Amino acid sequence: MPRKKPPLAALMATPDEIEAQFYEALQSADLDRLIGLWVNDELVRCIHPGGQLLVGISAIKASFETLFARGPVAVQAAEVRRLQTEQLVIHQVHERVLVPGPEGTQVAWALATNAYLKTAEGWRMVLHHASPGQPIESPEMHTGNASVLH
Amino acid sequence: MPRKKPPLAALMATPDEIEAQFYEALQSADLDRLIGLWVNDELVRCIHPGGQLLVGISAIKASFETLFARGPVAVQAAEVRRLQTEQLVIHQVHERVLVPGPEGTQVAWALATNAYLKTAEGWRMVLHHASPGQPIESPEMHTGNASVLH
Repeated sequence: MPRKKPPLAALMATPDEIEAQFYEALQSADLDRLIGLWVNDELVRCIHPGGQLLVGISAIKASFETLFARGPVAVQAAEVRRLQTEQLVIHQVHERVLVPGPEGTQVAWALATNAYLKTAEGWRMVLHHASPGQPIESPEMHTGNASVLH
Repeated sequence: MPRKKPPLAALMATPDEIEAQFYEALQSADLDRLIGLWVNDELVRCIHPGGQLLVGISAIKASFETLFARGPVAVQAAEVRRLQTEQLVIHQVHERVLVPGPEGTQVAWALATNAYLKTAEGWRMVLHHASPGQPIESPEMHTGNASVLH
């Protein structure tokens, strides 16, 4: 079934805005919103921390469905570094994740490489490679509503 | 000091060939050759498995110098997946590493995202993000001389 035509806001979104929506979708465990940010194709790839290489939108959707079965992900993106070309953009992102546990909530860090491809539907996610990271000092955290986007 | 003009072979090298040279340089602990494959700029980034985000060619060179102080890295790249645009190419690579230890040599796996940028000097490495991986079954290993490149 073909996708519905995306709204104008989605067509005009920058890679920064797609990225902000990605982290918002994680924070709200919104699977449909999260998957709608990706290129709907078998070329997309995702690596969760310590996980295998997932290829294709179906495998990636299934992995986030499993993740969201445990609830929303309390993740914030910090210190995004950008490499931009006309068709493809690569970001490095420090991810700060609050992980609930028997001894209370703990802070975990991850490092992600996110890539965005310019498609007929606008910029879409094409890669998310996350791996265990280390704390960064004095991070300038930003959420999906941060000033960097406006 | 400006770099010497690169040889024609380096100007004509494809991203696959630059990647093959990267793994050959790891295998031979050849720091100058390895660093010469990167964009000579502060925009480049490298994440070693479990390590911090390194930004800029100086920090990356120092990290590989430390790595090579322990000797060559017995690494092979397997099952490369490619995403190509005119200016920027992203590869996902399964890395198989032989790690010597007190109980003999062990096999470790990593997953890498390697990116290559088209520059005036030809394709050059701009990102290496490696993280702990898992064994893959029946890998079709390739080295720098594998048939996939010819």
